[in-house]
Amino acid sequence: MSVPAAPTTRRRTPKAPVRPIGVFDSGIGGLTVAAALRELLPAENIFYIGDTARVPYGGKSPSTIERYSMEISGLLLSEGAKMIVVACNTASALGVPRLQETLKVPVLGVISPGAQAAVSATRNHCVGVIGTRATIYSRAYERAIHALDPKVRVRSRACPLLVPLIEEGWFEDPVTDQVVQRYLNELIEEDIDTLVLGCTHYPLLSSTLTRFAGDRITLVDSARNCALAVRDLLKKEKLTAPRSHIGQMQVALTDASDGFLRVAEKSLGLQVGDVQLRHVQQATA
Amino acid sequence: MSVPAAPTTRRRTPKAPVRPIGVFDSGIGGLTVAAALRELLPAENIFYIGDTARVPYGGKSPSTIERYSMEISGLLLSEGAKMIVVACNTASALGVPRLQETLKVPVLGVISPGAQAAVSATRNHCVGVIGTRATIYSRAYERAIHALDPKVRVRSRACPLLVPLIEEGWFEDPVTDQVVQRYLNELIEEDIDTLVLGCTHYPLLSSTLTRFAGDRITLVDSARNCALAVRDLLKKEKLTAPRSHIGQMQVALTDASDGFLRVAEKSLGLQVGDVQLRHVQQATA
Repeated sequence: MSVPAAPTTRRRTPKAPVRPIGVFDSGIGGLTVAAALRELLPAENIFYIGDTARVPYGGKSPSTIERYSMEISGLLLSEGAKMIVVACNTASALGVPRLQETLKVPVLGVISPGAQAAVSATRNHCVGVIGTRATIYSRAYERAIHALDPKVRVRSRACPLLVPLIEEGWFEDPVTDQVVQRYLNELIEEDIDTLVLGCTHYPLLSSTLTRFAGDRITLVDSARNCALAVRDLLKKEKLTAPRSHIGQMQVALTDASDGFLRVAEKSLGLQVGDVQLRHVQQATA
Repeated sequence: MSVPAAPTTRRRTPKAPVRPIGVFDSGIGGLTVAAALRELLPAENIFYIGDTARVPYGGKSPSTIERYSMEISGLLLSEGAKMIVVACNTASALGVPRLQETLKVPVLGVISPGAQAAVSATRNHCVGVIGTRATIYSRAYERAIHALDPKVRVRSRACPLLVPLIEEGWFEDPVTDQVVQRYLNELIEEDIDTLVLGCTHYPLLSSTLTRFAGDRITLVDSARNCALAVRDLLKKEKLTAPRSHIGQMQVALTDASDGFLRVAEKSLGLQVGDVQLRHVQQATA
């Protein structure tokens, strides 16, 4: 048997694989952020993890939310994530500072892009914020907005029924209308002219929210503003994928229950393909 | 220094401590069972754990619910529990069989006492069941009822908004009324004469449920029936506490967030005292 001749063509350096943007949420709501990223940055790979085994984070304590955020970020890093996007307002409010302290990759939450957009949008310096109990009680939006402009008045309201209503799929529904109206009434009476949707589920309810907020109030959507901030940060850190690359999206959940995934997929026009299952390793505190 | 004289009184055998009944729920709803146990069995010590770090179980997958049930039972056993009461319909539906297989202490869920009570109550052999998605999809009530009487028709409905409404404290409220009415309508049209409240939160909403179910439908409440079954099982296993003993109740949560605990305490007239915090050890699968 003859030994094959050595190839005469010059060896090309093997292309480095395009590392994904790691995105996580307590559940499926963060897919609104993933959809905005797909639209704005089609060349990027995205690896999304929904911590559906422990969803929702919104009613849990700060230390538990911080721990869960660390654990899920660990899963994303093991997928080679080049940055972490915390596509969950609750985890952004309570987990991002610790992630930024401990991880080498850039970490971005939804709070600061939302706060920035709200400060730009308001004319009368009165901004409303709606979100889960944990997000609202953390006062994270208030702090982020005041860091940008201390003159802005912030009026907040926890809206714990909105996520279950969205997950029930009651989008255009008289019950949802009444709940939204009750939650927004106080804020409207406080004369807000800008409303931050401080939960990544809420864009799925934007038509109802717009209807009750009225024309005078500008809605600030976490998802779109977060995607814009991700684009800027990738550029700054020289982590942008080559323009010719065709980005792929992968979705993993920590629990097999994916009923709401199909609702979100349909509402967002997002193709998530086969869903992987990952077990969470508890961090040793 | 003189050596003290040996005591001359006869030594009494030290009394064995009264081992508690271990009770758990994914959260706070199981306190309705604890309240029923306190009322029926005032001599018993109760150790209650609410897995608030991972609440709710109702939308999660069977294998995750089974794993969580094992982990929380481990915590109860380390408190010396003489029996385990699974005061959560979801965990009863999906976790009890494995607990009964693996644990030496008696294990009782809320499903079989509820099924027994429903079969006794129905006159027209048509029973409705309401609960979380996981409980309803498991068909556990259907199986338990058919094991007792295969002729009974079972009509089930998942009601995922009821727990969030209860935790919001909207007990006598037009929004809650509409949600309850919508959930019950189909079942009423199916001509049920008995309705199983297949979630331990639901007794907190019993006045609204009674109003919409009407006089013709008997409500079967997990909590009361489970307490009766616990009494019988303790007797059978010779585990009943001495009648003279004054039972105590201890409550631990896996997360510090206890907002709803105060709602439940007030609604149930239950004194839970200081709440302890426990971290869940993940079982090595």
